[in-house]
Amino acid sequence: MFGSTYGNIFKISTWGESHGKGIGVVVDGCPAGLSLSEEDIQRYLDRRKPGQNKYATPRKESDSVVIMSGIFQGKTTGTPISMMILNKTQRSEDYDEIASYYRPGHADYTFDMKYGFRDPRGGGRASGRETIGRTAAGAIAAKILKELGIEVLAYTKSIGNIDCDMSIFDEEEINNNPLKMPDANAAKKARAYLDQCIEEENSTGGVVECIVKHCPPGIGEPVFEKLDANLAKAIMSLGAVKAVEIGAGTQVAKSTGQENNDSFYIEDGKMKKRTNHAGGILGGLSDGSDIVIRASIKPTSSIASLQQTVNKKGEHIEINIQGRHDPIIVPRAVVVIESMAAITVLDMLLASMTSRMDKIKEFFVRS
Amino acid sequence: MFGSTYGNIFKISTWGESHGKGIGVVVDGCPAGLSLSEEDIQRYLDRRKPGQNKYATPRKESDSVVIMSGIFQGKTTGTPISMMILNKTQRSEDYDEIASYYRPGHADYTFDMKYGFRDPRGGGRASGRETIGRTAAGAIAAKILKELGIEVLAYTKSIGNIDCDMSIFDEEEINNNPLKMPDANAAKKARAYLDQCIEEENSTGGVVECIVKHCPPGIGEPVFEKLDANLAKAIMSLGAVKAVEIGAGTQVAKSTGQENNDSFYIEDGKMKKRTNHAGGILGGLSDGSDIVIRASIKPTSSIASLQQTVNKKGEHIEINIQGRHDPIIVPRAVVVIESMAAITVLDMLLASMTSRMDKIKEFFVRS
Amino acid sequence: MFGSTYGNIFKISTWGESHGKGIGVVVDGCPAGLSLSEEDIQRYLDRRKPGQNKYATPRKESDSVVIMSGIFQGKTTGTPISMMILNKTQRSEDYDEIASYYRPGHADYTFDMKYGFRDPRGGGRASGRETIGRTAAGAIAAKILKELGIEVLAYTKSIGNIDCDMSIFDEEEINNNPLKMPDANAAKKARAYLDQCIEEENSTGGVVECIVKHCPPGIGEPVFEKLDANLAKAIMSLGAVKAVEIGAGTQVAKSTGQENNDSFYIEDGKMKKRTNHAGGILGGLSDGSDIVIRASIKPTSSIASLQQTVNKKGEHIEINIQGRHDPIIVPRAVVVIESMAAITVLDMLLASMTSRMDKIKEFFVRS
Amino acid sequence: MFGSTYGNIFKISTWGESHGKGIGVVVDGCPAGLSLSEEDIQRYLDRRKPGQNKYATPRKESDSVVIMSGIFQGKTTGTPISMMILNKTQRSEDYDEIASYYRPGHADYTFDMKYGFRDPRGGGRASGRETIGRTAAGAIAAKILKELGIEVLAYTKSIGNIDCDMSIFDEEEINNNPLKMPDANAAKKARAYLDQCIEEENSTGGVVECIVKHCPPGIGEPVFEKLDANLAKAIMSLGAVKAVEIGAGTQVAKSTGQENNDSFYIEDGKMKKRTNHAGGILGGLSDGSDIVIRASIKPTSSIASLQQTVNKKGEHIEINIQGRHDPIIVPRAVVVIESMAAITVLDMLLASMTSRMDKIKEFFVRS
Repeated sequence: MFGSTYGNIFKISTWGESHGKGIGVVVDGCPAGLSLSEEDIQRYLDRRKPGQNKYATPRKESDSVVIMSGIFQGKTTGTPISMMILNKTQRSEDYDEIASYYRPGHADYTFDMKYGFRDPRGGGRASGRETIGRTAAGAIAAKILKELGIEVLAYTKSIGNIDCDMSIFDEEEINNNPLKMPDANAAKKARAYLDQCIEEENSTGGVVECIVKHCPPGIGEPVFEKLDANLAKAIMSLGAVKAVEIGAGTQVAKSTGQENNDSFYIEDGKMKKRTNHAGGILGGLSDGSDIVIRASIKPTSSIASLQQTVNKKGEHIEINIQGRHDPIIVPRAVVVIESMAAITVLDMLLASMTSRMDKIKEFFVRS
Repeated sequence: MFGSTYGNIFKISTWGESHGKGIGVVVDGCPAGLSLSEEDIQRYLDRRKPGQNKYATPRKESDSVVIMSGIFQGKTTGTPISMMILNKTQRSEDYDEIASYYRPGHADYTFDMKYGFRDPRGGGRASGRETIGRTAAGAIAAKILKELGIEVLAYTKSIGNIDCDMSIFDEEEINNNPLKMPDANAAKKARAYLDQCIEEENSTGGVVECIVKHCPPGIGEPVFEKLDANLAKAIMSLGAVKAVEIGAGTQVAKSTGQENNDSFYIEDGKMKKRTNHAGGILGGLSDGSDIVIRASIKPTSSIASLQQTVNKKGEHIEINIQGRHDPIIVPRAVVVIESMAAITVLDMLLASMTSRMDKIKEFFVRS
Repeated sequence: MFGSTYGNIFKISTWGESHGKGIGVVVDGCPAGLSLSEEDIQRYLDRRKPGQNKYATPRKESDSVVIMSGIFQGKTTGTPISMMILNKTQRSEDYDEIASYYRPGHADYTFDMKYGFRDPRGGGRASGRETIGRTAAGAIAAKILKELGIEVLAYTKSIGNIDCDMSIFDEEEINNNPLKMPDANAAKKARAYLDQCIEEENSTGGVVECIVKHCPPGIGEPVFEKLDANLAKAIMSLGAVKAVEIGAGTQVAKSTGQENNDSFYIEDGKMKKRTNHAGGILGGLSDGSDIVIRASIKPTSSIASLQQTVNKKGEHIEINIQGRHDPIIVPRAVVVIESMAAITVLDMLLASMTSRMDKIKEFFVRS
Repeated sequence: MFGSTYGNIFKISTWGESHGKGIGVVVDGCPAGLSLSEEDIQRYLDRRKPGQNKYATPRKESDSVVIMSGIFQGKTTGTPISMMILNKTQRSEDYDEIASYYRPGHADYTFDMKYGFRDPRGGGRASGRETIGRTAAGAIAAKILKELGIEVLAYTKSIGNIDCDMSIFDEEEINNNPLKMPDANAAKKARAYLDQCIEEENSTGGVVECIVKHCPPGIGEPVFEKLDANLAKAIMSLGAVKAVEIGAGTQVAKSTGQENNDSFYIEDGKMKKRTNHAGGILGGLSDGSDIVIRASIKPTSSIASLQQTVNKKGEHIEINIQGRHDPIIVPRAVVVIESMAAITVLDMLLASMTSRMDKIKEFFVRS
């Protein structure tokens, strides 16, 4: 069955492998009349770009986007927007060995089980490069949301055991350090820890947090299409994510109702909550508070140190995965998580336009 | 937009409100030829039934299911299976007050924002009774999986700060205690803690864990339709769930690659992993190990103690929610989580049948 | 795979067999705030009701609808509307013979091939009674459209070789005669022809035409989700329909561009077309003219005269299908086609709300 | 809302405008292990190519396909297959005039109404060039079907009033004449008629018929997802199609049950029908006979002769559409209709794999 299509109204279809001809995405259902240029997309892709520092692979990925369709005179026409990023690296010489065994933590074994064989070049479709298509689509979704006054902001919350001090949260700092942490001091400690990981041929995990600000209340659908359910799917669909939390997240399990319930109050004529354990979502619908999502990301599976595994013949072997490996995925995942959150919130926002007869009538009377 | 339909191939559509005429579900896409009776469904609904002890509401919910369609001579015909549970309690007298204000932790405010008004009787569609439809459908999914050798098992892993000792995991114990814990000793402590909660007019959260055993490798689809992504959506779509974890879950963020990678090995000619931090899913596809899902469930929002909130007129008020309230939702959620996991795994298992040309050819040649 | 669910936003799921416990439909995605009562639905079901005359089966089908959910204080709440019609006739005694062979023109053979067996009671799920669910949902869709100023009107255009004279089209006459023809004279001739069919133990086909008035321009989506494409699917999904035409329909194949092109002109400041060969749809989008759909309906497959066929053992046999049979399906199909057109137009109308940035902005700014 | 995505399991997403950078399609859900090359696709695209004769536009469209992803070592990997055809002609100079008015029979007006403006270059997304993406995807679907023994064959059945004599149907002849008619004599007459159309600055319509051979019985889903319903949508989604017929089509309306019912019989141990008025589909499911689909195609809307219309300012004007125009679309539509039929039958064939418990069990036991 298909797996590379996402969204009900703002629908994206991604394609491409790590070492194939390119990576791309078709965005179908984008509203007409949005100003959009390749620069809007490139800015997002650049945030995902590695190679700026030693904590990310130095592979020269220029990743330049070309918009192939859906734009006329600088504006979206309402028809599919096809975006393409040609791969610079199409190594195909050295994959025979890697095709012969199953790397721990990777999808090698499961792809072989599902499809009978796999494209082993750089992980094929299971590579992190697959997220380029998501990010390109996310740039559009975020731009639309911004025009509606909604902002999506993600950052690294922790790396290994090093947590940001959220009481000194500094939004500007996020893009100042290569680790995308909103706390310069934590970032400094984390860099030292990553140096140690590199030395030990090891890798580490971390946490990305994403906030959606100014989302109007009532977005999401009851029961299965809850906003938090869709955000959970969107974020968990990233290969390295192993947990998704909303608001207080796992902490609710140890909490009591008296502690966890967020009291409503009115300030300046607006409904507010004294706390936000709910993470901006009640009964699956946005409540007007900040939407708070957290993703726990596993340590990079490709590590330089010796590992034990099994090859296709069923023999026990030891492997050393060649090449240079990122000791951490987290900072590069920040913009991808922001993208998936933006796409999901936009899709449900558009869906919410049909929920009330009075608003539907008004819409068509005014048209 | 619609929100009460779930699944791509095995598709379920639920309906009904807490105090309306009834609750139901239509299962469309169930394979033909499955033996199915109302008893098969009732057994699942009974596991969700409250009132057996003081930790769950004593409301007499007999919740008897009637199968309205889709069965002929005791077997499914392949056409929609409509199941209905009539509500015994259709209180409609006393909801004027509750309609006038917004209960903390409930969906009252967000439903009003979305739809302009709401059915306030017992929470309407946002009531936990909505999960009856899911459970009835889950009973069918679980029965199909069982015929294919796949088992789904959920239980309470912790209540407040009381964790089960998983080293003495006792599957039989799960249904021996009303808290559905696989550790009799933990269950005893948890009962004492719940007694305290009741006394303090408070409530508590907890964790449900769900294991899927013997799922063949390769189930799930790459990119957006990953098995873990769909499980996350399925479980997060339960109103009280605020976090979903797969395998090592949030622990991966503090782990290293050397610790977290699961080594493959062969035993008795079968591929195995020395650890299961991945929770049975690699690259979004099942790897043949146990699939491990964990849900963090918030404390019951309806508590007896005084709470501050706002009414529809925008006035600050204090409320005492009347009636008796469960101090905990967790044990009743066990069978619901099991149901959502079963539906999701079945749906993706069926989807996986079309992934390979050789198997498709064989299928049609043999037909 | 599922087959009983229809619609993207206004989504309906039908269930039930001819001689099972009942027939029903769940409407998910209906906007909140619509006044809706069982009378609104019943009026549509009564138009489908047979037994008023000798041209339709005298089976006493009271077909009384009960709304089970989704309404509070006379208004839709935005949550699923479950509607149920209990079957009065649950004959189950006499289906052994009918289960043993394959009736020409019926789905007996194909259901057996697909599912391995079938519910033979009155045709099971393949019975015309299945359309009751569609009609109940259509009543809601038509009511919403009416509030938006859009009307859907269907009628019998021809029976056998007897065509209505459209130059004397009389809308009031449609409900005056049991054949739903807008031409009293044609209806009279058709009745004589049907008497002849009955005498000859034969049946006849006919044509239903459906007009959608005042649909705003621009409804439908380019490429695969064209309005006419969806209407064609909706109407062709009725078991007895073998052709669907839009506007000039099959006549376009013999026409020239100079004849077939509809010239635009302006009248009273409004865009109009001098002819309507396009049937109100250009490039898959409504153009503001009347949308014109025509369905060719085959003669009733169940006829009293002797027929040759094959039984399950593969033997050639002759059969006499017992019971009284309608000599024609056409008049009863009128309200069903109206319903399918209404559901389709509504669904695409709601979908069209998200096509332009300026209107989306205005919508959310005003909300 | 999205409109350029089609299919449930074998899902295609097309993109591109007539005079943009290119045209493309992403096929998601293609089974792994199919041998596939660019030549397989090119062969289909070449059948759609114009310019071989004076009845089709001489525009040099080389339309060379590039496969961007989803293939490894000559075989499909199960991941999305992205195909791209760069446009040679990107005229953008001369569209100011055409953007200023509404051509009769075209989607100019309706696109403006839907999106607020349009890409006027060569019709933009509403151009016939959009069908290139469908044809590329159709080539894959047809190849898969062929491996399963199923063939899809389309041809021109009539042009204007000139019908092929089906009693001398000659499959080889179809590709011998530029009009794709299976009757050389009719083709000769049709060419003379087209010469006359060109002289009169006029155009003509025609009929394409498509046969699907050897489709196993039981393909399709009851109620809304009937095989004929989906074929009707697929074919009606082509811009110039105004009627879709299955089997006897519109003729059933004038037929009687005794004439129209197809008698079953057994020959060589196989179930057959003495006639095929049903067109191979009973109750929405394939019955093992040839599936017969007919599409009525309107005359080319772009004609050289003077036409009356309205411009954007609302003024009545007369226009002469510049450039050379095809006097007929029909022969070029043949391969597109074949493609849409192949995609639809394949998609429903794959969907049918999950309809029976016994076959599901067997599938997983053998896996």
